Amino acid sequence: NREITTRLAEENTEKAKFWWDCYRRLIQMYSEVVLGVSASAFDQILTNWKARDGVKNDSELSVKTLQSIVHDFEASVQAHGKTFPQDPWAQLTAAIEAVFRSWNTDRAIHYRKLNNIPEDWGTAVTVQSMVFGNLNENSATGVVFTRNPSTGENKIYGEYLLNAQGEDVVAGIRTPKDIQNLKKDLAKSCKQLVLVLEKLEKHFGEVQDVEFTIEDGRLFILQTRTAKRTAAATIEHFLQFVKEKKLKPERALQKIEYEQVKQLLHPTLKVTEQKPMARGLPASPGAVAGKAVFDPESAVIISRSGQKVILVRRDTSPEDIMGMAVSEGILTSTGGMTSHAAVVGRGMGKSCVVGCTEISVNETLKRASANGQSFSEGDWITLNGSTGEVYLGELPTAPVTWGKTAQMVFSWADKIAKIPVYANADTPEQARLAIELGAKGIGLCRTEHMFFDKERIKKFRLMILSENEVDRKKAAESLRTFQREDFVGIFKAMKNLSVCVRLLDPPLHEFLPKSENKEEIQILTGELKISESKLLLRIQQLHETNPMLGHRGSRLGITFPEIYEMQVRALAESLYRSIADKNPVVLKIMLPVIFSELELKVLLLNLKKAFYEQLNELTKDRPNLLKACEKAVKWGTMIELPRACIVSKKIAPLVDFFSFGTNDLTQTTLGISRDDASKFIPDYREQGILSVDPFETLDQDGVGKLIELSVTEGRKANPNLDIGICGEHGGDPESVQFFRKLGFDSVSCSPFRVPMARLAVARAELDGLKF
Amino acid sequence: NREITTRLAEENTEKAKFWWDCYRRLIQMYSEVVLGVSASAFDQILTNWKARDGVKNDSELSVKTLQSIVHDFEASVQAHGKTFPQDPWAQLTAAIEAVFRSWNTDRAIHYRKLNNIPEDWGTAVTVQSMVFGNLNENSATGVVFTRNPSTGENKIYGEYLLNAQGEDVVAGIRTPKDIQNLKKDLAKSCKQLVLVLEKLEKHFGEVQDVEFTIEDGRLFILQTRTAKRTAAATIEHFLQFVKEKKLKPERALQKIEYEQVKQLLHPTLKVTEQKPMARGLPASPGAVAGKAVFDPESAVIISRSGQKVILVRRDTSPEDIMGMAVSEGILTSTGGMTSHAAVVGRGMGKSCVVGCTEISVNETLKRASANGQSFSEGDWITLNGSTGEVYLGELPTAPVTWGKTAQMVFSWADKIAKIPVYANADTPEQARLAIELGAKGIGLCRTEHMFFDKERIKKFRLMILSENEVDRKKAAESLRTFQREDFVGIFKAMKNLSVCVRLLDPPLHEFLPKSENKEEIQILTGELKISESKLLLRIQQLHETNPMLGHRGSRLGITFPEIYEMQVRALAESLYRSIADKNPVVLKIMLPVIFSELELKVLLLNLKKAFYEQLNELTKDRPNLLKACEKAVKWGTMIELPRACIVSKKIAPLVDFFSFGTNDLTQTTLGISRDDASKFIPDYREQGILSVDPFETLDQDGVGKLIELSVTEGRKANPNLDIGICGEHGGDPESVQFFRKLGFDSVSCSPFRVPMARLAVARAELDGLKF
Repeated sequence: NREITTRLAEENTEKAKFWWDCYRRLIQMYSEVVLGVSASAFDQILTNWKARDGVKNDSELSVKTLQSIVHDFEASVQAHGKTFPQDPWAQLTAAIEAVFRSWNTDRAIHYRKLNNIPEDWGTAVTVQSMVFGNLNENSATGVVFTRNPSTGENKIYGEYLLNAQGEDVVAGIRTPKDIQNLKKDLAKSCKQLVLVLEKLEKHFGEVQDVEFTIEDGRLFILQTRTAKRTAAATIEHFLQFVKEKKLKPERALQKIEYEQVKQLLHPTLKVTEQKPMARGLPASPGAVAGKAVFDPESAVIISRSGQKVILVRRDTSPEDIMGMAVSEGILTSTGGMTSHAAVVGRGMGKSCVVGCTEISVNETLKRASANGQSFSEGDWITLNGSTGEVYLGELPTAPVTWGKTAQMVFSWADKIAKIPVYANADTPEQARLAIELGAKGIGLCRTEHMFFDKERIKKFRLMILSENEVDRKKAAESLRTFQREDFVGIFKAMKNLSVCVRLLDPPLHEFLPKSENKEEIQILTGELKISESKLLLRIQQLHETNPMLGHRGSRLGITFPEIYEMQVRALAESLYRSIADKNPVVLKIMLPVIFSELELKVLLLNLKKAFYEQLNELTKDRPNLLKACEKAVKWGTMIELPRACIVSKKIAPLVDFFSFGTNDLTQTTLGISRDDASKFIPDYREQGILSVDPFETLDQDGVGKLIELSVTEGRKANPNLDIGICGEHGGDPESVQFFRKLGFDSVSCSPFRVPMARLAVARAELDGLKF
Repeated sequence: NREITTRLAEENTEKAKFWWDCYRRLIQMYSEVVLGVSASAFDQILTNWKARDGVKNDSELSVKTLQSIVHDFEASVQAHGKTFPQDPWAQLTAAIEAVFRSWNTDRAIHYRKLNNIPEDWGTAVTVQSMVFGNLNENSATGVVFTRNPSTGENKIYGEYLLNAQGEDVVAGIRTPKDIQNLKKDLAKSCKQLVLVLEKLEKHFGEVQDVEFTIEDGRLFILQTRTAKRTAAATIEHFLQFVKEKKLKPERALQKIEYEQVKQLLHPTLKVTEQKPMARGLPASPGAVAGKAVFDPESAVIISRSGQKVILVRRDTSPEDIMGMAVSEGILTSTGGMTSHAAVVGRGMGKSCVVGCTEISVNETLKRASANGQSFSEGDWITLNGSTGEVYLGELPTAPVTWGKTAQMVFSWADKIAKIPVYANADTPEQARLAIELGAKGIGLCRTEHMFFDKERIKKFRLMILSENEVDRKKAAESLRTFQREDFVGIFKAMKNLSVCVRLLDPPLHEFLPKSENKEEIQILTGELKISESKLLLRIQQLHETNPMLGHRGSRLGITFPEIYEMQVRALAESLYRSIADKNPVVLKIMLPVIFSELELKVLLLNLKKAFYEQLNELTKDRPNLLKACEKAVKWGTMIELPRACIVSKKIAPLVDFFSFGTNDLTQTTLGISRDDASKFIPDYREQGILSVDPFETLDQDGVGKLIELSVTEGRKANPNLDIGICGEHGGDPESVQFFRKLGFDSVSCSPFRVPMARLAVARAELDGLKF
């Protein structure tokens, strides 16, 4: 302050005004950040003086008034109990300390949490001497990208202002000029800038985002950093760099950010001023807008008329599947990143925001509200599944950008990767999508979703409601045709590739309505010609306290052998068809929820008998076909319970392959239900107990140890054992690298995560190498 | 047949009749067992001939008629397509084969399953030549016990018949005589018999059950075996044998059957002809009769008038606790050996039959039915919790026989055992019972049951329904007095012993009524002065898909720190009181459901702070008391999740003790919910996949491996670590031996299983030794 007071007194008016400008800019930041005195205190004083002098702009104030302002501000700082240090070194030290302090502001902590930046990194402070772009008309300041950060075009992109300081470019008071004009305004400096930009880009091997200032014709570079770009531009730039031999493909692959890969595959939200109404967990990426519906039936009805809908529920269950299938996106108020809504939504490629606890959903009144805002059925809402944000109204979105460039860049990854990436796909459509996104087979084909079609669910329910083996067998058999059709369709899409089919997994009650759902109960009694009391009794019998740990998976195969038998017979028929039609696949048949070798033995004995019986019948006069079919089938089990890991050496000799179901293995090892986790996982992350969500990134210290044991013992007991993973972690880069290190033979994930997994398996090979 | 035909033709009438009698007896057994021709075929022929000859008794038939009968029977056997072998060696071989075949009859298989006899043992055949107790009046046959098998009295006990064969004694046609009369009838043989009995008892070191026949004055011993006796008699006999120096105490302990120990502690059902109406799982032993009630409210009301009730439910939940407490026994149609009903019932010492799937319970109509029989509210039923049987009506029961003899015999065990047996006890009454049954401390004091009292549940619910930390803290604090009272009561009962208190474990929704329960919801809204919609919303928010893997245990401690803090403050106060009153205990504070060392660290930090703050305040002017209190408290964790086992080396250094919660560890390791297991575990046992119920006997190959890992790594990281077990397996002999082998420092189980565990820990030391 003393310095500026002196300068204001000594210099001529023009020079004084320049110093004043510098002072004003500095003081506003310094008072707030370093002294902790709000910048508005200064602004208030300034406003008061302007009013007193009857002027509108700072530039109209007299030097004397400026002096008074400086004086008033100093008094104000003192009134706040602070002192403005006069020694420049003290000022500098205080400023440096303020930067260090900024590491621990709420905003910084929040940012680090969002971006998984470790707490213990700390920050650095760069001290630069001041240069003045506002010195005269031979001065300028600007921001420039070495290539276009939006389209990817190889052309300098940016803005500048003559006779201005940095913040003027972004403040919006003056309109900055396109960088292409700089050549005309300041030719020499412009030429110099272009040379520097080229040098910087070459040095860093990345497109740069550079701040510069020209002080009286002399160019200063204030800052350079790798440019933040759209995913499409980033990928385009890598392709350019590789073509220009500025970058090796391997290095490019190491540089791609996984978050950007997500963007490539999903529509994004265009920049908006609108504040989100609420924020949930970003369970499945993509920005979508649609009309809110609160039950699957309405979703089906409204979408039928061509309208886009978003299904809003407290949580979803398999009953909601049809509604989910016709919706653009799904929003739930409960559930975590791997809740039913999240997993199924992701599988379907739907945008999905889950665990949005701020929103209270009233399904009866068909109304949801949060933070004083609300919407009802038919109102437009917009979800951003990539960030978890929920908006009222229909916001503009930008389309998918997965194109030729991306395909080319990802093909580099495939060349480097040592193991294939498979996809989890349950329908021919999903199988085709998986292929398009680069999957080399199907690692998990769930059979339960095949039963939710209207006609099938009826037959399936008849099977569940059967009271004896004979009726159940008959009902199961009536489903065989449908199963076969599905498999044949999927096999066609996967010609020459492998398809791993998991036999029925969920507990049977998931296929019946809840007993509270009076309406559906009534419809069902009519449809199935069954008394209401009998139906309710069966629902009651099938009810489970902990369905996750209940009567499901291979336990159904033990208690109701008819179901699995029907499934393997349909598989035998489909495999036969695929090979007879010269459209061969490798069929892997997988048993879920196994915990003991005896259980597996009993099941394999029965199922192989049924499978080969069916196969023999089909190939009666064609022994070569039989041989081909026999060669094309593998039997295996999911490893998804801690006990299965522990007894792997006994299980491994019975099968051809293991596939780790890391979702359930995480649930049981940690004792955490993924559907209920959202009630406490946020607190656990808040308090630093969990650094990542264990359902997103594999818990290597816990679950990982069990997997390691299982792999080691399994391989020892059966050296030919094929090992894969088909949980959600199959699409998580960090987890994929872990699996690769353990010597897995493949990973599988939902189709939209396939590109990410392709990148991750390549990175696992590149890890630690420098290019 | 040729032989008998000859004899009937040759001998005089009297002799012929004797041979006929022998033939008849033999042929009935032989035709059925060896030839597979029903004995009724022979009976029919006999009846026909008696009718033709107009006689009532066999003895009135002429020799000629007898010959015709033999002839007719031979023809009948041939008509069945069988041949009666005439060669005695062929007859013998066929008979021997029939015995071997009998190993695989349904009944034998069922028996072995019930008694855990391995399938691969096989059977042996003893061939004896025939002796004839029916030869003349100088002949006799009888069954005798060397000591009284019912009362234990040291006096020969048994029955005999003169001129008769073995089966006449049990057939009930002639009334056998008390063995005490034999001296008068056949003095010489009687003297001989007494000498033989003494020799046999001495040789086997066991009370014998002997079958004998006297043929014309000559004594033959047909069979001897260890006598099946009441539990009370068995124990009494062991005491006699040890006093008589016929048996070492160590050997006696090895001979006691665990099943009999159960009998000692619970009323048994007197012998009955009545067939059970249904059979479930024998979850908690003891025979009880009472009037059926179908809801906890009725249980409370009806029992208040002094009537005995049995609570019949589909399954029970914590809401039922008050009803369970006033009932004689509990019957549920679902749930396994460690379902809520089973665990709580056992803890309360209630007779309990669970998972009785044959019975269909209609709670609304207050009616249950099975196998064509049914009962309604107010009807008498009888449960045998030791066998799982359910009877209509009030059946007579025999009382508990745990007395001085048992106490003396079990005190031998305590001298041999190297580790103490603790009890799981939640109330002062249970604590006293535990001491009476020989517990050396409390290994698990659950705090949740303390909140179900009418006044407390109200305050607890207010706490749950609080919307912010301040209200919740206030509500929690209002519960502190109650908690303290409970702890003080328990500590008083456990003077000089250790008490391990587990902080709140179950998910909060267990403390609220279900949303369907309109009536209770309405009462609650009035009681708590809260709107119905708000209450329903909170219930909805707390609802869990898989409560077992949900928001419970230490997770509550992380998200709602006020609750645990209140609990440790109440513990500090109670410990202070116990030490100040010279009634000291060792207090162990235990955190449930831990899966990570960071979680434990955060909790211990907060809880120790609160605990010592409270302690410091209480002992302000008494530093010695503070020191004593500090010395008397240990901090520990339950190990009940696979991940906790895996990261034991990180957890162990943070605590003084581990206590394995093997119920939950079994649930998570095997992925089996104990509440839902009854739906498939029976099939798994039927098919030989599970040889025992893993919730009864520890799964050593799976869960056991995790425990072993945890113990090894835990001890390595903290050599002073105290290791115990407080799951249901703490009372299972086979499991207890396993724990002892792993070097556990204690086991804990429900009070009524303490004697069994005392025996088991002693046996673990005696194992393999011969006396």
